[in-house]
Amino acid sequence: MQLGLVGLGKMGFNMRERLRRAGHDVVGYDRAAEVRDVASLEELVDQLEAPRLVWVMVPAGDPTRETVERLGELLDEGDLVIEGGNSRFSDDQRNAEILAERGVRYVDCGVSGGVWGLEEGYGLMAGGAAEDVERAMPVFDALRPEGPREEGFAHAGGVGAGHYAKMVHNGIEYGLMQAYAEGFELLAAAPQVENVPEVLRAWTRGTVVRSWLLDLMVQALERDPQLENLRGYVEDSGEGRWTIEEAINNSVPAPVMSAALFARFASRQDDSPAMRAVAALRQQFGGHAVHHAGPTSGAGDVHGH
Amino acid sequence: MQLGLVGLGKMGFNMRERLRRAGHDVVGYDRAAEVRDVASLEELVDQLEAPRLVWVMVPAGDPTRETVERLGELLDEGDLVIEGGNSRFSDDQRNAEILAERGVRYVDCGVSGGVWGLEEGYGLMAGGAAEDVERAMPVFDALRPEGPREEGFAHAGGVGAGHYAKMVHNGIEYGLMQAYAEGFELLAAAPQVENVPEVLRAWTRGTVVRSWLLDLMVQALERDPQLENLRGYVEDSGEGRWTIEEAINNSVPAPVMSAALFARFASRQDDSPAMRAVAALRQQFGGHAVHHAGPTSGAGDVHGH
Amino acid sequence: MQLGLVGLGKMGFNMRERLRRAGHDVVGYDRAAEVRDVASLEELVDQLEAPRLVWVMVPAGDPTRETVERLGELLDEGDLVIEGGNSRFSDDQRNAEILAERGVRYVDCGVSGGVWGLEEGYGLMAGGAAEDVERAMPVFDALRPEGPREEGFAHAGGVGAGHYAKMVHNGIEYGLMQAYAEGFELLAAAPQVENVPEVLRAWTRGTVVRSWLLDLMVQALERDPQLENLRGYVEDSGEGRWTIEEAINNSVPAPVMSAALFARFASRQDDSPAMRAVAALRQQFGGHAVHHAGPTSGAGDVHGH
Amino acid sequence: MQLGLVGLGKMGFNMRERLRRAGHDVVGYDRAAEVRDVASLEELVDQLEAPRLVWVMVPAGDPTRETVERLGELLDEGDLVIEGGNSRFSDDQRNAEILAERGVRYVDCGVSGGVWGLEEGYGLMAGGAAEDVERAMPVFDALRPEGPREEGFAHAGGVGAGHYAKMVHNGIEYGLMQAYAEGFELLAAAPQVENVPEVLRAWTRGTVVRSWLLDLMVQALERDPQLENLRGYVEDSGEGRWTIEEAINNSVPAPVMSAALFARFASRQDDSPAMRAVAALRQQFGGHAVHHAGPTSGAGDVHGH
Repeated sequence: MQLGLVGLGKMGFNMRERLRRAGHDVVGYDRAAEVRDVASLEELVDQLEAPRLVWVMVPAGDPTRETVERLGELLDEGDLVIEGGNSRFSDDQRNAEILAERGVRYVDCGVSGGVWGLEEGYGLMAGGAAEDVERAMPVFDALRPEGPREEGFAHAGGVGAGHYAKMVHNGIEYGLMQAYAEGFELLAAAPQVENVPEVLRAWTRGTVVRSWLLDLMVQALERDPQLENLRGYVEDSGEGRWTIEEAINNSVPAPVMSAALFARFASRQDDSPAMRAVAALRQQFGGHAVHHAGPTSGAGDVHGH
Repeated sequence: MQLGLVGLGKMGFNMRERLRRAGHDVVGYDRAAEVRDVASLEELVDQLEAPRLVWVMVPAGDPTRETVERLGELLDEGDLVIEGGNSRFSDDQRNAEILAERGVRYVDCGVSGGVWGLEEGYGLMAGGAAEDVERAMPVFDALRPEGPREEGFAHAGGVGAGHYAKMVHNGIEYGLMQAYAEGFELLAAAPQVENVPEVLRAWTRGTVVRSWLLDLMVQALERDPQLENLRGYVEDSGEGRWTIEEAINNSVPAPVMSAALFARFASRQDDSPAMRAVAALRQQFGGHAVHHAGPTSGAGDVHGH
Repeated sequence: MQLGLVGLGKMGFNMRERLRRAGHDVVGYDRAAEVRDVASLEELVDQLEAPRLVWVMVPAGDPTRETVERLGELLDEGDLVIEGGNSRFSDDQRNAEILAERGVRYVDCGVSGGVWGLEEGYGLMAGGAAEDVERAMPVFDALRPEGPREEGFAHAGGVGAGHYAKMVHNGIEYGLMQAYAEGFELLAAAPQVENVPEVLRAWTRGTVVRSWLLDLMVQALERDPQLENLRGYVEDSGEGRWTIEEAINNSVPAPVMSAALFARFASRQDDSPAMRAVAALRQQFGGHAVHHAGPTSGAGDVHGH
Repeated sequence: MQLGLVGLGKMGFNMRERLRRAGHDVVGYDRAAEVRDVASLEELVDQLEAPRLVWVMVPAGDPTRETVERLGELLDEGDLVIEGGNSRFSDDQRNAEILAERGVRYVDCGVSGGVWGLEEGYGLMAGGAAEDVERAMPVFDALRPEGPREEGFAHAGGVGAGHYAKMVHNGIEYGLMQAYAEGFELLAAAPQVENVPEVLRAWTRGTVVRSWLLDLMVQALERDPQLENLRGYVEDSGEGRWTIEEAINNSVPAPVMSAALFARFASRQDDSPAMRAVAALRQQFGGHAVHHAGPTSGAGDVHGH
């Protein structure tokens, strides 16, 4: 099947390769000249036979919106755009409307799998009309892992449902990672446990906590048993925030997913204004020693507040 | 290899079967006459050739302590007791000391795998002296999953380290389960997602969140797509509590594991005293409507507090 | 000073009374005929001498927006609208712009104090241009508590800053209430403490936790020492949600404020879908007994997962 | 009334002064020669007329236990010891038993108020037999704030109840402080709010969040409007930990109090092992850039995991 692929970064580059291995004819465009097959979106559209299928895989936000708008100008009635980036689900309705003005169809697709997707396949969650999803099925089948289709692909609902499902997937991912992380820290802190990496490795078969993330953790610990070459500084890329916002919108308690998000926020603070406030209060009522900014001073403690 | 197995409940019964399949000679004792091989601990000890190996798999707390004490009276110097139940790690030192008075050796072993262990094998974490662990290795090898030993078995450290590792395993397990659970609730609450079970099934291959727990979740949703035959009432069996206590003892932040534990506590409350207090406060300062105990009344809301 | 007051609900009604006691000439309008001074917004505007001051105190959202729009049509250049309801700060800019088209000035003002404000005064946080805030100062002075102005009134910043400050105030309020509530539940659960209401009363002077909310708690416990006439069902009115969303927007960890919000969400669930998912998982891996929907069945527990 | 006071640190020193101002005859002992009235516990006991009353105000743990044991040797039947330090409630039973062997009575008393107690009085929560509490009432009356006795003093229950109530008080205190602290950080982060200290000051009268802690916060901000002379490093002194442990023992959800405690733990970590684990996982599955230990490198982010 012929398709265009816009965006050949870490994800798109590998996806083109996986699609080609499956026999698809992929025309790739990227701003970076060294990776692209064609030099412009116009050229990409020209090379595709109508009705066209164009997969968009560029950063969420402005780049995706601008790409969709430009495709709306270039594509024809009956063409289909699949937006596979990390867009917020709430952007999909607008994207679909922009394209609908030209009779261009729209499907959103959440893609999970990271750098491993090239070999292992990508987990896919699609949103849109059934006929549009069906039309792109050869592409989905090539990208998803081998095995039963339903174990690596879902048609989650109408436009936006794919990104919604991916958003929740990432919210869960945050919680899972934090759970393992807290467990790692506790094992590392406990004098009782002499060999933390071995314990985590022993969990990879048979236990309740076995998972792909655990396998990755074991691999990381193989190379750096105490993770001492890393700093505990963790970015977040949007989906975790959106998940909490949606939890709030739907009155769903999300204590674990929010705790995981806030732990990332805190990890990026050199010093916490909130904890400065707590220190200030303790100093006020209890005469508790504080740590002053600048050269670290010792701190004691008194009782009785 | 010959061994005694004390406790033939859900776990012990299956473990005897798995050990026998591997060719071991297991003498099982339980209070329940219909499952046991011998009628008493005395008989069990009599049937084993010295130096003996006795695996204890009875409920944590008093039953385990009493069994260890009784074994201390029955066993001889050079015999080995493996305590595989869900004991708190802090009990192991005392167990070891009781047995050491008679020259009996002691290893603690955390066992994970639940009802699936019979077929898939059990994840094992042992604590004790290297020579004692080595001596029991044929038993560990039979119980653990097939594959490399280190992926299903670890010698975590000295006496108590096995249960410590298992405790942390369960703390992580609490966090993982709660993360999936929050995600499930959010998907179920979101009008955007039309087919929740299909979405979860699509995560089982390729995605970052794939895991054994997710597989189990998919199986549960197959039989009951909205889990409407269950109540949101969740017990806890000790390890989650101990994990938080250890986190506190070691000054390790554990926001996710504690949130998961507290969600279980709350799930078992018909009505929350804390939330009655919040309702009372809101009524006091804002004249906010409250729900009275007894027949449920409607509740409104006003602004301006 | 003469002013119009739109909205005579629980808050507005008392505010009119407090303003009148301070000698201000208040023309009140409400949809409810029995409390209003004039029968329409038109009549209210007619009765005020230009340049007019109109305080809006109607429910947030559509009612406030519609009132501001209608005032935009009725008022003249140089008039001033103060929006004192529980609006989201992000609505203020739009309100200001609607009015600015007619040369009407706009100030937003967060108002705290609830039903106690009539006698004790209201805490006020205003946002807008300095000259507009200054112009309304006699009104602010009448509404705020006696004592130094700066202890009950702040000019927090430009348009929207007043509601922003009030939003954060309410986020803190959620956290404070939950902290007392958790403490209450723990005291009530502990066999060691024989007289919970007396303990809370003893905290009202001298202790670190003394506060107005504690005083209210003590009053509530006087009438109902175990709060047994209430249900633990707690609404939320928006500000708590917005606070968490703003925390997320600004990458500010907010574990306490979010925990308090989620506790309210959970308090309103008859049964938790998330906890049904956890129960389902435990049943799957451990054969743990579950509680079925419908007539409550007993639940046991087994070990070894 | 005559009494002995053992421990003249920050708390005890001020308490002696407050007791003397109330006309009591206090004999103070401390290891520090410059503050004490007598040079030894023996001398203190000698100077008191039987039946004696001795208030112990030394650090919790070993110092308190050793003092109680020594007093058990020195005192006579009918004497009364009041333990007013920050002991864990679970120590009180043992203290009482040690003294009971000599017929010495025991009351535990939680004391709140910090450095302000000298002028404002201390909030007091006592545990013990009614006749022992009654006997010490003149001392309690002198220490507690002026006003009705029940607003600054409670007889919470039997031995241990006073420290239990104080423990919960401190758990609440942690939650309250963290709530204000999160609000402070959010106000400070929000571009909308131009004057954070003024906003907090405006909350001190009339609002729902007014409290003594807020007053202290305002005082701290007066001297250092952005708290820039402090580091966000916060100790904890035990009660917060014990509160969570008791919440767990009694199956009481404590999400706010635990979040506050964990925020303190995190504030004392230069780098979080848990967040290193999360960073490692993100690097593994997504090729996400990480921050390496040592000289800080920049970090980017990619999408698609």
